[in-house]
Amino acid sequence: MRFLKELGQTDPLNIGRQLHGFAAELYPICRSITGDGIRRTLAMIQSRIPLQITEVPTGTSVFDWTVPEEWNIRNAYIKDAHGKHIVDFHQSNLHVMNYSTPVHATMSLNELKAHLYALPERPDWIPYRTSYYQQNWGFCLSHKQMLALGEGDYEVCIDSSLEDGHLAYGECYLPGSSTDEVLISCHVCHPSLANDNLSGLTVTAALADLLSGKSLRYSYRFLFIPGTIGAITWLARNRENVGRICHGLVLTGIGDAGGFHYKKSRQGYAEIDQAVTHVLRDCGEPSEILEFSPYGYDERQYCSPGFNLPVGCLMRSVWGTYPEYHTSADNLDFIQPLQLGRSLRVCAGVVDVLEENRRYRNLNPYCEPQLGKRGLYRSTGGEAIATEINARLWALNLSDGAHSLLDIAERSGLPFATISDAAELLCQSGLLAPIPSGATFAGRDGRLQTDLDKAQQIRGSHKVATLD
Amino acid sequence: MRFLKELGQTDPLNIGRQLHGFAAELYPICRSITGDGIRRTLAMIQSRIPLQITEVPTGTSVFDWTVPEEWNIRNAYIKDAHGKHIVDFHQSNLHVMNYSTPVHATMSLNELKAHLYALPERPDWIPYRTSYYQQNWGFCLSHKQMLALGEGDYEVCIDSSLEDGHLAYGECYLPGSSTDEVLISCHVCHPSLANDNLSGLTVTAALADLLSGKSLRYSYRFLFIPGTIGAITWLARNRENVGRICHGLVLTGIGDAGGFHYKKSRQGYAEIDQAVTHVLRDCGEPSEILEFSPYGYDERQYCSPGFNLPVGCLMRSVWGTYPEYHTSADNLDFIQPLQLGRSLRVCAGVVDVLEENRRYRNLNPYCEPQLGKRGLYRSTGGEAIATEINARLWALNLSDGAHSLLDIAERSGLPFATISDAAELLCQSGLLAPIPSGATFAGRDGRLQTDLDKAQQIRGSHKVATLD
Amino acid sequence: MRFLKELGQTDPLNIGRQLHGFAAELYPICRSITGDGIRRTLAMIQSRIPLQITEVPTGTSVFDWTVPEEWNIRNAYIKDAHGKHIVDFHQSNLHVMNYSTPVHATMSLNELKAHLYALPERPDWIPYRTSYYQQNWGFCLSHKQMLALGEGDYEVCIDSSLEDGHLAYGECYLPGSSTDEVLISCHVCHPSLANDNLSGLTVTAALADLLSGKSLRYSYRFLFIPGTIGAITWLARNRENVGRICHGLVLTGIGDAGGFHYKKSRQGYAEIDQAVTHVLRDCGEPSEILEFSPYGYDERQYCSPGFNLPVGCLMRSVWGTYPEYHTSADNLDFIQPLQLGRSLRVCAGVVDVLEENRRYRNLNPYCEPQLGKRGLYRSTGGEAIATEINARLWALNLSDGAHSLLDIAERSGLPFATISDAAELLCQSGLLAPIPSGATFAGRDGRLQTDLDKAQQIRGSHKVATLD
Repeated sequence: MRFLKELGQTDPLNIGRQLHGFAAELYPICRSITGDGIRRTLAMIQSRIPLQITEVPTGTSVFDWTVPEEWNIRNAYIKDAHGKHIVDFHQSNLHVMNYSTPVHATMSLNELKAHLYALPERPDWIPYRTSYYQQNWGFCLSHKQMLALGEGDYEVCIDSSLEDGHLAYGECYLPGSSTDEVLISCHVCHPSLANDNLSGLTVTAALADLLSGKSLRYSYRFLFIPGTIGAITWLARNRENVGRICHGLVLTGIGDAGGFHYKKSRQGYAEIDQAVTHVLRDCGEPSEILEFSPYGYDERQYCSPGFNLPVGCLMRSVWGTYPEYHTSADNLDFIQPLQLGRSLRVCAGVVDVLEENRRYRNLNPYCEPQLGKRGLYRSTGGEAIATEINARLWALNLSDGAHSLLDIAERSGLPFATISDAAELLCQSGLLAPIPSGATFAGRDGRLQTDLDKAQQIRGSHKVATLD
Repeated sequence: MRFLKELGQTDPLNIGRQLHGFAAELYPICRSITGDGIRRTLAMIQSRIPLQITEVPTGTSVFDWTVPEEWNIRNAYIKDAHGKHIVDFHQSNLHVMNYSTPVHATMSLNELKAHLYALPERPDWIPYRTSYYQQNWGFCLSHKQMLALGEGDYEVCIDSSLEDGHLAYGECYLPGSSTDEVLISCHVCHPSLANDNLSGLTVTAALADLLSGKSLRYSYRFLFIPGTIGAITWLARNRENVGRICHGLVLTGIGDAGGFHYKKSRQGYAEIDQAVTHVLRDCGEPSEILEFSPYGYDERQYCSPGFNLPVGCLMRSVWGTYPEYHTSADNLDFIQPLQLGRSLRVCAGVVDVLEENRRYRNLNPYCEPQLGKRGLYRSTGGEAIATEINARLWALNLSDGAHSLLDIAERSGLPFATISDAAELLCQSGLLAPIPSGATFAGRDGRLQTDLDKAQQIRGSHKVATLD
Repeated sequence: MRFLKELGQTDPLNIGRQLHGFAAELYPICRSITGDGIRRTLAMIQSRIPLQITEVPTGTSVFDWTVPEEWNIRNAYIKDAHGKHIVDFHQSNLHVMNYSTPVHATMSLNELKAHLYALPERPDWIPYRTSYYQQNWGFCLSHKQMLALGEGDYEVCIDSSLEDGHLAYGECYLPGSSTDEVLISCHVCHPSLANDNLSGLTVTAALADLLSGKSLRYSYRFLFIPGTIGAITWLARNRENVGRICHGLVLTGIGDAGGFHYKKSRQGYAEIDQAVTHVLRDCGEPSEILEFSPYGYDERQYCSPGFNLPVGCLMRSVWGTYPEYHTSADNLDFIQPLQLGRSLRVCAGVVDVLEENRRYRNLNPYCEPQLGKRGLYRSTGGEAIATEINARLWALNLSDGAHSLLDIAERSGLPFATISDAAELLCQSGLLAPIPSGATFAGRDGRLQTDLDKAQQIRGSHKVATLD
């Protein structure tokens, strides 16, 4: 558990404060799926980790979609008849519906109201609204502001532009000894919203920083992309290489005070699902595993049936289930340094498991090897054995080519690190040998594990026919 | 959900009253597995739906069985020494053991008692007894009648005949666009017993009436047959065509006040099992799913190992578990119009699911298609999505050739109709295309669904070797 | 259930008293993994059942191990400065660490203490300790004895020898009509410890005695061996024939007052696992089924990945979980005649199930055969059917080549004996025929049984590729 150990040198609160500090720098920027806000954001990430930035021109076809016009905004306000600024973009970039077309006009309250969005049940908060693909303009304001609007004419101004330009995304690629890839993806298109998704952005960047320059088994690809259209664009441009992705995670909403939620990949039994489940079980915080569903973040695209990549989504509180979601209350107070730091630790733990998870072959498969003569057993018989010795017995017994270390950890109930340490020691003693990577086998939870393992292993070798 | 909608125009109580009225007409007839009682019954069904009646001669070999002599009865009584009618067939046809041989004799109470059947624990009720295959005669009477019998001689008379004749059954075949068949079977051999099985008979006839003259995907075959020997006779005469049956239901005991019970087919994972389970889940009444067992109604024959057809059994209260079962208390008051009407609705719902359940192919399987430009998405981003949109995402994501709409409904937790509507809309938009019928895949319940789906799909393509 | 019936003639308490009497004869002997103690033990077993004794020379290579020097001991004591015997081997053979090297010396209390073992938390009990493979000597004594040791010099004497010799084990082979084998294994290397494992030894010997001279379907092999090295030695010498073992049990710790525990084989779904689970379910005592783990008794060797034999372990209280384990408190009072007798009954029940468990073919698979004309059904219709008739319907319905009688017993919820009796009767009536032995199918528990059966049957025909 190399990266977890490296992180362990520092208090998670200290690390989390750095992450929170970075989030605070990024918070004021008005981001969208295109435009200068996201460019500034990518540049700030690039100052911390090696990042290749790609600009894709407006009008480019990406599967069923088209890269849209680039949106930029300079100013926006609503003034009342007395010239008083009622709503001002410079106070909060949430005030303007994202992708609003330019407008400068005077109109009655009634006309204006068709373009106003508020949350009656949360009278102090400004909602976050977008209209990327349907030309429209609008203002978001607190319900209190809405109530204060008297009859009369209002001057509305949105000084924005929608023009041919580019969609930008950032990519940090860390080559490992294998071209098999681990994908970590976060969306970076939301304006002043902290949990959704400066939390995911900062944790992703910190994870890339942690792995950067290290000797790695897998190659790692960190994507900082606009949600939906960014993932679709990246997939369209990298369609041929997507098969390299062995494991993937979407990181989002990972800084709030809630416990962890992991939404499984569409495959549902992938190694990433097994790895995250295992790490969360021992992380010391409450956690819940959710079945895959096709609504959510960019796992929607990675797990579309044509790709069906093993990509899950790690969150704390689930989008849409907390009132602050997509409002001005998802601010810098809503995300907490300690939670950010702990989220990074979980991610590092997942990387450690993926890096170390292998299948081994028992080189003495007939009866137990004599561990005692190798100093790997207790010397006085009759007493109970230690966990470390138990882990060696498990690693020997299940290293039959069918079980990975994660499978053994699950079946034995022992932590992955204990099993992994045992396997390493047994390798050094010539009792186990790693099996070269190739087809991997997924294990499964609970008491039916054995039977389901079998069912899954069969699945592995006898692919279900699907149409394409 | 075409047929459910058509039924929905009428209050289930009104429909149920019609069903109950038909049951009341049929109730007085003394039916048996052969004879004029069943002929009159079939004729009355034939006046409502197109029915082909088959007469199979006594002595015909049907697998391990032989069509028995035809039984008819005109009169039966027990008179005491004073000439008083103690028991009279014309008061209740249950008084005579069904298939009693003719007898006319005078005998002592002691001799008579060997031929009397009563229910001490239910002193007012007459039991229902039969002796089809062992020549015998007997009277069934209430325990109170039994107790009132004094010493002395009794005149017993059963004016019945057992002669070469025929076994009659009725068949209503509604051709659909495919020769693949749905089988609906009910037994029509019981005399004055209402729930068992005038309830099944009337609901089956009403379902046939509902589907008659309509454009159908499947062909439907409704069997009105004597229990056991009727099903065996039909199977023996149709052995070559039985492979056309894709889905089947035995309907019985479906008019009492109890909740639904569905006994799964021997296969246990057939589409009919999945469909009925799904419909019952949303039917608004309590319901319970029972594992297959080899005792019961004619599913015993359809699910014998040589056929192993996907035929389940839909009931309300389970035979043998309620005291009125097989007694004179299973009368017209025991079945309720509202329950009959609701049972018909459930059957119509099952037909709707079978008719509409298909697998589809996502024609844009790489990433989500852009629903917004087709008017299939919300226009303002940032808010939650409606159930209808969620259903579209599910239908797109799982239309990979392996999942049927029922599978998608189960996995998403959404009603079948919502998923089916979504699929239809997506077809109209050119995003989905139906996959021609052929091998179907069954889904499964609960959290293990994914794994078991796989196991089952494997089963589909790699048949388990069985001996024959 | 032939052997269970034979045992049933005698009160289990009476049989248990005989077993306890034999344990009492064996109790005083100082056994070890080699030496005269085990020879005397094997000779006493040989006086009761036919036993072939094998002596394997010191130095023989057995897989990763080597047969050790033979250990014998004549005397051992600790004397204080006054010549008083503080610790005396003749009072309890547990006082000497098993396999202690010879020593005769005078030393200070401090020097001595490095060689003393006691249990502070159980001040009256002597622990059991061994040092087979690391040359050492030691004394085990009660904590009270330990506390009573004053400062001063002590004379220590262990009159033992470690010399070239032999490792002895006993084997009772009862040939059956098939060379397919059932293996029953117990370790016989522990000195004065009653539950671990005179209980297993005496029950194994009694089971062999019960089966001896009888006509048997399987061949039975009873192993009386030193733990670990004995099993390894036997496996090394019989490597070529191990494939004959179809079912196996390790019997240990089977005489104490606790309920039964069965640790499943590594396969986890073997017929032995199914059989023991079924027998325990109906045994009238509490029981628990444990998943396989690689620590325990000689199932460790039989279930090593190279062999992966279907061998489970039947116990009462689980080793290591009760305080008396591996101490002088595991004495003749700790094992109870009634428990020994009942344990033998469970073993006999398992043998009965294995002997009788077969798959049958329904010779009338199309519809039910007419049981009534063969006197196998009730004669009066309308009433409930008896359990015996229900068992016949189950046996007919599931005798499709895929289900064994055990599978049918599990799926029907009826006792194995009821299903087995039904199958025998149906065979006599020409309705079923046994399928010649060959690949067997395992069933499985609970509501997912059907699906998992399928998964497992698939597994049977499509072997998972493993490396070797």
